[in-house]
Amino acid sequence: MTILALNSYAAGKWIAPSGNTTKLKSAIDGRVIAELGARLDFAAMLDHARKVGGPALRAMTFHERAAALKAVAQYLNERRDALYELSYDTGATKPDSMIDIDGGIGTLFVFSSKGRRELPDDVIYVDGGIEQLGKSGAFLGQHVATSLQGVAVHINAFNFPVWGMLEKLAPTLLAGVPAIVKPASATAWLAEAAFRMIVESGVLPDGAVQFVAGSTGDLLDRLGSQDVVSFTGSAATASMLRANRTILENATRFIAEQDSLNATILGPDAAPGTPEFDTFVKEVHREMTAKAGQKCTAIRRILVPADHRDAVIEAISERLSKTVIGDPRAETTRMGALASLDQRRDVLEKAALIGSEARRVFGGDDGFAPDGVDAENGAFVSPMLFACDDPDGAEKIHSVEAFGPVSTVMAYRDLDHATALANRGAGSLVASVFTHDRDVARKVVLASGAFHGRLYFANRDTGREATGHGSPLPHLVHGGPGRAGGGEEMGGIRGVMHYMQRTAVQASPDLLAGITRTHVKGATTTSGEKHPFRLRFSELEIGQTLETASRTVTLADIEHFAEFTGDNFYAHMDEEAARANPFFPGRVAHGYLILSFAAGLFVDPAPGPVLANYGLDNLRFMKPVSPGDTLTVQLTAKAKTRRNAEYGEVRWDVTVTNQDGEQVAGYELLTMNAM
Amino acid sequence: MTILALNSYAAGKWIAPSGNTTKLKSAIDGRVIAELGARLDFAAMLDHARKVGGPALRAMTFHERAAALKAVAQYLNERRDALYELSYDTGATKPDSMIDIDGGIGTLFVFSSKGRRELPDDVIYVDGGIEQLGKSGAFLGQHVATSLQGVAVHINAFNFPVWGMLEKLAPTLLAGVPAIVKPASATAWLAEAAFRMIVESGVLPDGAVQFVAGSTGDLLDRLGSQDVVSFTGSAATASMLRANRTILENATRFIAEQDSLNATILGPDAAPGTPEFDTFVKEVHREMTAKAGQKCTAIRRILVPADHRDAVIEAISERLSKTVIGDPRAETTRMGALASLDQRRDVLEKAALIGSEARRVFGGDDGFAPDGVDAENGAFVSPMLFACDDPDGAEKIHSVEAFGPVSTVMAYRDLDHATALANRGAGSLVASVFTHDRDVARKVVLASGAFHGRLYFANRDTGREATGHGSPLPHLVHGGPGRAGGGEEMGGIRGVMHYMQRTAVQASPDLLAGITRTHVKGATTTSGEKHPFRLRFSELEIGQTLETASRTVTLADIEHFAEFTGDNFYAHMDEEAARANPFFPGRVAHGYLILSFAAGLFVDPAPGPVLANYGLDNLRFMKPVSPGDTLTVQLTAKAKTRRNAEYGEVRWDVTVTNQDGEQVAGYELLTMNAM
Repeated sequence: MTILALNSYAAGKWIAPSGNTTKLKSAIDGRVIAELGARLDFAAMLDHARKVGGPALRAMTFHERAAALKAVAQYLNERRDALYELSYDTGATKPDSMIDIDGGIGTLFVFSSKGRRELPDDVIYVDGGIEQLGKSGAFLGQHVATSLQGVAVHINAFNFPVWGMLEKLAPTLLAGVPAIVKPASATAWLAEAAFRMIVESGVLPDGAVQFVAGSTGDLLDRLGSQDVVSFTGSAATASMLRANRTILENATRFIAEQDSLNATILGPDAAPGTPEFDTFVKEVHREMTAKAGQKCTAIRRILVPADHRDAVIEAISERLSKTVIGDPRAETTRMGALASLDQRRDVLEKAALIGSEARRVFGGDDGFAPDGVDAENGAFVSPMLFACDDPDGAEKIHSVEAFGPVSTVMAYRDLDHATALANRGAGSLVASVFTHDRDVARKVVLASGAFHGRLYFANRDTGREATGHGSPLPHLVHGGPGRAGGGEEMGGIRGVMHYMQRTAVQASPDLLAGITRTHVKGATTTSGEKHPFRLRFSELEIGQTLETASRTVTLADIEHFAEFTGDNFYAHMDEEAARANPFFPGRVAHGYLILSFAAGLFVDPAPGPVLANYGLDNLRFMKPVSPGDTLTVQLTAKAKTRRNAEYGEVRWDVTVTNQDGEQVAGYELLTMNAM
Repeated sequence: MTILALNSYAAGKWIAPSGNTTKLKSAIDGRVIAELGARLDFAAMLDHARKVGGPALRAMTFHERAAALKAVAQYLNERRDALYELSYDTGATKPDSMIDIDGGIGTLFVFSSKGRRELPDDVIYVDGGIEQLGKSGAFLGQHVATSLQGVAVHINAFNFPVWGMLEKLAPTLLAGVPAIVKPASATAWLAEAAFRMIVESGVLPDGAVQFVAGSTGDLLDRLGSQDVVSFTGSAATASMLRANRTILENATRFIAEQDSLNATILGPDAAPGTPEFDTFVKEVHREMTAKAGQKCTAIRRILVPADHRDAVIEAISERLSKTVIGDPRAETTRMGALASLDQRRDVLEKAALIGSEARRVFGGDDGFAPDGVDAENGAFVSPMLFACDDPDGAEKIHSVEAFGPVSTVMAYRDLDHATALANRGAGSLVASVFTHDRDVARKVVLASGAFHGRLYFANRDTGREATGHGSPLPHLVHGGPGRAGGGEEMGGIRGVMHYMQRTAVQASPDLLAGITRTHVKGATTTSGEKHPFRLRFSELEIGQTLETASRTVTLADIEHFAEFTGDNFYAHMDEEAARANPFFPGRVAHGYLILSFAAGLFVDPAPGPVLANYGLDNLRFMKPVSPGDTLTVQLTAKAKTRRNAEYGEVRWDVTVTNQDGEQVAGYELLTMNAM
């Protein structure tokens, strides 16, 4: 049998293992399947990332990087079967592998799509609104974010070799930052295979990604203020890495996502017989057995109303007793192996510690034997359910994590007690609540939100669409305070920002417009011969403007509009009543009349590049328009947001003023323009 | 002369100094003016904050906390004169004191105002939009933030005893988190006086603020995962505190704002004779002398085009030579003293290090004597300007900070060289650029943004309103990467979030609406007998809804609307041309016609609680409306955003559907409703 030689990828070259290599064993039967270990020149790798990969990525716009992520995802998607094959020996069943492999690829797709929809087709991200810093608006503040000019070092966990790599790569690459990936050794053959596909896809520029199959040596000691470490793993390792002097002294960003003592709460309203009770039991069982409980988000603590404790234990135990444990390659198997014999040893040790504070009510007996596989050399364990009678006095069940199919049931008196117990984890990635009661949900958010990175509420309404207690999603932040590491990953664009620097820019409107490529009130505008609606997307420049003719609004117009639309609001129709209103001087024009007349003034009727007005944002009526007032409109190209081959989206700034030059309304108009 | 006994404020009690106290001396003449030092029970202080102060603050809404900040600001504002008097002995002139005292009070006002405008009248902050996690929308994701349930420990610098305290307290208290303030000893008498006023105002609940006049003892060793340390001071101290085991192990948030090697760049376009050149010289002089250069944002490195180096040195030197240095109490004095003799010693030592790599071109001669004060016991120094001929080879000028009126001029070849030199600071709070060229501005943001927390562009257009290179503003983030500490403070609501936990909530629309008190599409709505526009602000409940009658849009309507408004866009008027458009099936109704008819359907004409429609957000046209289509509107109360005694703002969700139940348009309507 061949042993896979896991290569590193450094400065554009594959480096085979050499010297004293580490042998990696199958979780199923303990046979050696791969080896890794090579002496790498980390200084050269960092240099390559900083001088080649970073500049190449930063030369691409967010949309170009998003397109690259999509191409990588498609490439991997077509090669999933090869990855599934390699995954079994990590102990994973096919459904486990799908969480890892399909989940990872899906994360790339989501980041690609969010990159196109929520980031500009540029290299500078604009964060939040403009702050006017003086009376006249000659000096403005605006936060922007630009790519860090260093390297992201990703230190991944063994449990999800593919997803764990991709969920960090997606936001990093979208941010324009090159990465050095260090997979956990135990399952590195799967990570290496997926990484190799990424390189082979040819999609990413040289230097964008590198791979360390083996030890990180002095890599961390070489980091600086533009670099980021993103770590997933145990609290103990995180604490050790975090204390690195170089990291502390350079204030190097350190993002940690640690396994934590995640809790689930069966709501006070969710008695046996309710749909919530059934969903809860199913979910606890799934969280205990999926990936053999090796998920940093898995349920470790089960909090239930005292009255329902026995029913919960019975229902979970019944499901566990029916769970087929054994060869992950077998279709009948529901739970595979832990990732290694080391992990099995560790889980059994931790379970014994938990056992010192809780009774074992399911599993862990001597008689356990997995189905149809080598019980001795395979890393199989029985699921274990504990019950703790003194959750307030206990310490270990709130702090010791057995990273396997192990969980503890505790009874609570009331919701305050339940949230207090959940918070005893001192910071978790996620807590779930099974309730159909709005008040219970709000109370849990207020009492426990500060202790959890994610709160998952499931009930009869969420049934089919609920994504699962243990599933981090690319749209939502993953991470939690305290014991969970104090970090955040993903969360859509939030996760991209961890690899960018936010900078407060202060400047004149003109310079700010130049920096952000977005027209800013007060910046220079240009008006050419052509109506700007006659310019194609590719021709249109930010700041191009149209000053319209003017139109007087008569009382007859107002009355006619009211009659035509049916909008007979008294402020338009009844002088005396309008005057009594605190905001109006007397009868005023309808807001929608102002909008409609404005459009009448700026629209260019004949077919041309502007295909449609698809929306409008931030409309504010600033001053009432009285009969006899004369309106003029200024329309300015504000930003070109995104495009495909045929057309692109344009955002226009629209200002409506009266005869005294006072602004009566302002808004942003959205059009679709042909290329 | 009496010596001020600086009290601590612990668990609601003032604690006088005792035992071996530290004596604090005037920066002007070295006389002892205050003493501090007491043995404090930090466990009890933390307990008081966590169990009394935190719950009391969390029981207040953001708007109530904002009102408290305003009341504190007003209280302090009326007592500024007493603070100015105490400030002279820190070495500060009256203008220096105004930066500190008025600047600090102004920061409270800004956070109060932002709290009311940008945060809800509730205790849960909604962060970003809703993420639909499944096809039907039965399961949604939404990020929220809730107050951390711990304590903020503020460790302040000596240079701005009032501003430094208030700029940290404002976002902390607005977040609902109690604080323990530790001022720098050197100027603690001024901090204590301001703190005493805050307590005496009686505005804040018990336990909201405490004060440590003296050492922090084992305070940091007692922190946990819900606590935050916010530190301002030197890089060396930050590095030491950051390495605290308890902080590392609990992933306690640690925000550091460190003095850094801030640069200023004279743009390539800003030759002598341009307004930019003059503004630049004035600003460099101001930054060197204001607060005697003791600002963490002060300009330490002056980057100028090689051709203009001599002109710059000459112009700055001339200004420096005219600067009156001496008794800060004298009105003619432009620059006062450093904060202490220790500081003077440190500045002279650091200047000597800089002198090993650069020529001194102004100041620092033996002959220096301050005007009309005790030169020996007062902490006065001469401003010192250096010029470095080898900025690329130099190390110390990019890393050693003399925290006083000391700065170094360096010549650059081109803009790339200038930004590379600016980045040699390895992370700064701020860099400034004096340019009138849009391209220069964008290039600097791209090349240097990642190294700076703030980029300040000044030129002929920003003249009067520009706020100054060295002035952090409450609206903008203050902090920077790497050498600047890697932290962020202020930045409006961003700064509040440092004291809150972001949590991803996943739930059904109903539960999510219950949690955020904001109507969510898919959540239960209620329709009563009354039109919801007939309900006062105080009566209206989120989710109250109106289903209108319907109205058919005819071709005559479209033609009439076009004729009336002047909007004759071909998609409404020309069947053949409309069909050729990729988005329309043929002639369609104007978007503004749909809006206007929708208003006609939902408006309630008679005077009532709805006083005005003041705006509209997020309008999207989802499907074309063809002649013959029949429209219906659903109007639902979405959120009550803010209120005063007479009226409040209501946000409505508006959905316009056609006869097939397809949504054709959606938007949010904003109304002002009587109480």
